[in-house]
Amino acid sequence: MKKLLTLLVCVGAALTLQAQEISMGGGGVENPTINPDNSVTFTFHAPNVATIELDGEFLPPREIRTQQGTRTTTRTPLAKSADGVFTLTTPPLESDFYTYNLYMDGVRVVDPNNVYQNRDVANLINYFIIGGGHGDLFDVQDVPHGNVSKVWYPSPRAKMAQRRMSVYTPAGYNPADRRTKYPVLYIMHGIGGDENAWIDGGRVPQVLDNLIASGAAEKMIVVVTNSNMSQQASPGDAPASRHRPQLMVPGNMDGQFEESFLDVVEFIESNYNVYKDKAHRALAGLSMGGFHTIYISANYPDLFDYVCPLSAAIVAPQGDRDSYIYKDLDAKLAVQFKKAPKLYWIACGNADFLVNNNKEFMKKMDEKGYKYEYVETEGGHTWKNWRNYLTMFVPRLFK
Amino acid sequence: MKKLLTLLVCVGAALTLQAQEISMGGGGVENPTINPDNSVTFTFHAPNVATIELDGEFLPPREIRTQQGTRTTTRTPLAKSADGVFTLTTPPLESDFYTYNLYMDGVRVVDPNNVYQNRDVANLINYFIIGGGHGDLFDVQDVPHGNVSKVWYPSPRAKMAQRRMSVYTPAGYNPADRRTKYPVLYIMHGIGGDENAWIDGGRVPQVLDNLIASGAAEKMIVVVTNSNMSQQASPGDAPASRHRPQLMVPGNMDGQFEESFLDVVEFIESNYNVYKDKAHRALAGLSMGGFHTIYISANYPDLFDYVCPLSAAIVAPQGDRDSYIYKDLDAKLAVQFKKAPKLYWIACGNADFLVNNNKEFMKKMDEKGYKYEYVETEGGHTWKNWRNYLTMFVPRLFK
Repeated sequence: MKKLLTLLVCVGAALTLQAQEISMGGGGVENPTINPDNSVTFTFHAPNVATIELDGEFLPPREIRTQQGTRTTTRTPLAKSADGVFTLTTPPLESDFYTYNLYMDGVRVVDPNNVYQNRDVANLINYFIIGGGHGDLFDVQDVPHGNVSKVWYPSPRAKMAQRRMSVYTPAGYNPADRRTKYPVLYIMHGIGGDENAWIDGGRVPQVLDNLIASGAAEKMIVVVTNSNMSQQASPGDAPASRHRPQLMVPGNMDGQFEESFLDVVEFIESNYNVYKDKAHRALAGLSMGGFHTIYISANYPDLFDYVCPLSAAIVAPQGDRDSYIYKDLDAKLAVQFKKAPKLYWIACGNADFLVNNNKEFMKKMDEKGYKYEYVETEGGHTWKNWRNYLTMFVPRLFK
Repeated sequence: MKKLLTLLVCVGAALTLQAQEISMGGGGVENPTINPDNSVTFTFHAPNVATIELDGEFLPPREIRTQQGTRTTTRTPLAKSADGVFTLTTPPLESDFYTYNLYMDGVRVVDPNNVYQNRDVANLINYFIIGGGHGDLFDVQDVPHGNVSKVWYPSPRAKMAQRRMSVYTPAGYNPADRRTKYPVLYIMHGIGGDENAWIDGGRVPQVLDNLIASGAAEKMIVVVTNSNMSQQASPGDAPASRHRPQLMVPGNMDGQFEESFLDVVEFIESNYNVYKDKAHRALAGLSMGGFHTIYISANYPDLFDYVCPLSAAIVAPQGDRDSYIYKDLDAKLAVQFKKAPKLYWIACGNADFLVNNNKEFMKKMDEKGYKYEYVETEGGHTWKNWRNYLTMFVPRLFK
């Protein structure tokens, strides 16, 4: 016993050195602190830093005067005490999932006192959740959890031996039970995103776990594709790809992705225990993924009964890009709507730079008498909106 | 076409605003730059920052004089130019996987110009790889890739409905093909780690992909467990767990984990296409995971033919902790070695604070004539060593 204790103390001591190192990134505090009134306090011990600013959608933009005149900034400075402690407390926040960054002496960094962060294109961003309401949907709850897998599949239509997707299988899914079948939601990222985007920033695993557990949504498999045909996988997970992620990635709107989407569906339907009919397939996507949603569902009108373009980059039907995928959208839509999809669910923020394009698109649909639903929310082209849309349309699927 | 182009330019313009924001974290440069001679250059545009220091195992510690006397630091300051650009170029580095952090005006941060990072306990750390040699084993190569899944399983022996593990299935693994069977390596983390540690810091997917593709290793499934019985899953992935990760987590060395390890094996053998005999099971672990490796394999001498304690926290056999798991290790080892495991592979760094404990353990094994192998490497209790051990013992398994 004595020897064991000595050893453990020794391990502890050696690792405590490392632990001290850990706490040096900001004085050992943990960020953020969510106060009883749902205000949020950020604290940093950083005596040698001159300024720390917080940039989060939960703080209003401010007007500042510079030598060049007045301009608007989304950054709010923290107050610094004489002993080098920076603090900021927000007003009480509504229950939701929030993201933020810091600017430390003008350099954008992730909060050294908060290890919880996602990558969004080339940015690492921190997050926190205010529970007790809507935000609970985005948090890990004590409910049965589904599994998330990073899955490689062949894409012969794209002449690529390997591409990667993320697959969420709901709690209880058993690969060996070929008789219990599930419906599938295919969901697509925007420009600069990849197969990680909806899993990380979109909180798909948490939202699906929670909606399924409460009975609000059907059990379903969710497949998150990578729409950038110049990539095999997200940056860092394909050969020679560990460079700064790019916003504009070649090969994501030239028809190849839409065409090779059939490889995704075929792979899922060969390798997972799923239904193989239109009534059990849904397609959704944000921004560029909304564009893909519209074109994939129109080109393959027998595939999807549930079609959800979110803040979609909608292109007028007279588009004449080289690929056949983009030709004759009007005619394709006519066929698609003659086959009466069960749900065509459009959503956009009222301040989104794409809202007018969506309205033009819907005007055309109205003229033709196509049946769709439209949800307009506050705000712009943001993950806050896309996460919310997920919580709204998933309960509508496969019912 | 015109309308489509207009729209895309519009999308591009809106997102370029975001892209500019992206580049503000350090002036748009990308870190690090690997030069032709394998020296590495770090660059930051940060005019308002007074000091940036780099802390990485590839730069030697330095002696510095303070008012309190001389002390050693592992941080190296970057040089700042008059126009606010910080730079540092390392000497040429050997091909390997390297990690580092920055200190910006004394605050530990991840490099804002490098999105590639892992969490190690409560630290985010950046990484880069020097290729052209040993480091290639840790990089993503153009070879067939296995899948990585985050899998929830029930642990009745721990009275927990859900716990999480990571599972690597090699390229070509097909859940539906119940006749093609694979061997399984179970691998365990150290104090403060969890089921993500070997996947992220340990580069298990890349190393296994590469060793299997070259023919150096057999195709195998790798299961990474979570040894902290006070956790269902890694911090942030279990309910109410999104706090600063802790180094010392309750319930990881009280016998519960070892006992409930049988739930892991039973789950894998029920749900995956695997062999179910000793010759096709391997067990490995680092530090505390080495301790678990010794006790699990000794308590269940019919389970593992391959046993690899890495920088193990080895406890002398007279340990008398309450759990039966820790009692009578001598007698258990006698049974285990009478059954002649095919490989008992011990590794430790020559500067590891546990190296003498390992030597004492081996002295006892020598006295009993137990057959084992020992590899002693340069250096201490580090991921550099553990990643290397992985590349060394995996080719020895299942042959």
